[in-house]
Amino acid sequence: MTIQRPEDFRSSCRAGKFNTQTSGQCPGFAQANLLVIPINAAQDFIELCERNPVPCPLLAITKPGDPTVFTKGSSIFKTTTDLSTDFPKYNVYDNGKLISTQSDISKEWSKDHVGFLVGCSFSFEFALSKAGLTPRNMSQGFTVPMYHTKKYLDPAGVFTNSTYVVSMRPYKLKDIPKVREITKKFKPTHGEPIDWGFDALERLGINSLEDTIFSDPIELEEGEVPVFWGCGVTPQLAAAEASDKVKGTIMAHAPGHMIVIDVKDEEVPFL
Amino acid sequence: MTIQRPEDFRSSCRAGKFNTQTSGQCPGFAQANLLVIPINAAQDFIELCERNPVPCPLLAITKPGDPTVFTKGSSIFKTTTDLSTDFPKYNVYDNGKLISTQSDISKEWSKDHVGFLVGCSFSFEFALSKAGLTPRNMSQGFTVPMYHTKKYLDPAGVFTNSTYVVSMRPYKLKDIPKVREITKKFKPTHGEPIDWGFDALERLGINSLEDTIFSDPIELEEGEVPVFWGCGVTPQLAAAEASDKVKGTIMAHAPGHMIVIDVKDEEVPFL
Repeated sequence: MTIQRPEDFRSSCRAGKFNTQTSGQCPGFAQANLLVIPINAAQDFIELCERNPVPCPLLAITKPGDPTVFTKGSSIFKTTTDLSTDFPKYNVYDNGKLISTQSDISKEWSKDHVGFLVGCSFSFEFALSKAGLTPRNMSQGFTVPMYHTKKYLDPAGVFTNSTYVVSMRPYKLKDIPKVREITKKFKPTHGEPIDWGFDALERLGINSLEDTIFSDPIELEEGEVPVFWGCGVTPQLAAAEASDKVKGTIMAHAPGHMIVIDVKDEEVPFL
Repeated sequence: MTIQRPEDFRSSCRAGKFNTQTSGQCPGFAQANLLVIPINAAQDFIELCERNPVPCPLLAITKPGDPTVFTKGSSIFKTTTDLSTDFPKYNVYDNGKLISTQSDISKEWSKDHVGFLVGCSFSFEFALSKAGLTPRNMSQGFTVPMYHTKKYLDPAGVFTNSTYVVSMRPYKLKDIPKVREITKKFKPTHGEPIDWGFDALERLGINSLEDTIFSDPIELEEGEVPVFWGCGVTPQLAAAEASDKVKGTIMAHAPGHMIVIDVKDEEVPFL
């Protein structure tokens, strides 16, 4: 089922009718990642994002205790949106462990929880397509390969010792200058690649292109090299890892199950 | 010779009278690092700083061609300041090579050059002292140990494959929470440490505490571990490394030879 309008997508999630992964939903509109942090660690999370803007670009922040009111980024939604119900699926973490995956976290969202929306690299894929550089995951309809690296985030407060997650799209070396030029405009959704080429594997601390997380590996074609971007799963893993140091539950969207926002892909560079 | 007032320091540099390293000059006032980039690469440099705010915190930007007029950060100077004469010593790079070290770059500063001032971690050392946590380099009067790491910056345009430089101050493990708390407020001058402990050496890619750059190693006392901060020498090395891809000369302060600005250390968190 492909839903066309973001507000229909969100009401469908809210009604419990849409609960699968969101790749290809509402073509042409941007999607966003969710983190929900107890207020005792919320300031640390904001500083983590400020110190690491490439993997953790903050798009919106809610009022504490209210998943429908935004203190930053309210213009990304044109209709009333409830972050505790309008994602298809959520993960709930407590004391360092994933304790459940559920379709609604309105009961878990306490007066002390603050919600954060983080940019998603899907947003520049249409721009690449328009330039004749369609990412293979887009043309062939699979989840973009993601890798956990050994590149450390600059820590903030309780968020220490976390590392970048990166997404990978293969390109020919000759196309990389154009790929960088196109994606660098998308600052709120990771911007230009953070590294490329086979020697990037060593710099990033990735042992093999087979070692994906939340996705399957793909085979590179003749003449192609891997190109790596910052990935919005990064703050989710940082939050999950810190959840034993935070008083209260931490929640997030289930990977691949994003929210669709009322921002067209081509509007992302101007957010 | 210790000069007390920043404006006297700057006029002394301008007159060619002060030309040595600046540690201890104008006690209580902040110092800043300089980069001067041809306009063809200036936007890339701004994006490098935006993508890597911890090692590359931008304090001020000049109008192209004019080292005395600021388009950002003008309030850090209370008297007319000329960035081409008011540092004690400068390095000039061309085509990937250091071509000279000189006390005045007013002739080299063309109509196409843009100047950038970057925060310096000296600024939080007085705050640490007030809390009884005086950095050893400060109490014993030597240059803070600096290390070149294998932690890569997120690239921007011509600035690729550059790595963090870090400064190191030794502390006891029990004092690290307080050290982090005090320095995190100094966001415009690197903020809290990026890593600490002996296992940080492997994460940062530092082979040995003996391998300093622009400084001498120090011996750690019983019970101390190394604590590492982002360092403003990072963008200078990134610029030097990129200078073969930039049309025109790149200039910078000579390491250790900073400018003193009209901002008191305790005002830095509010810049």
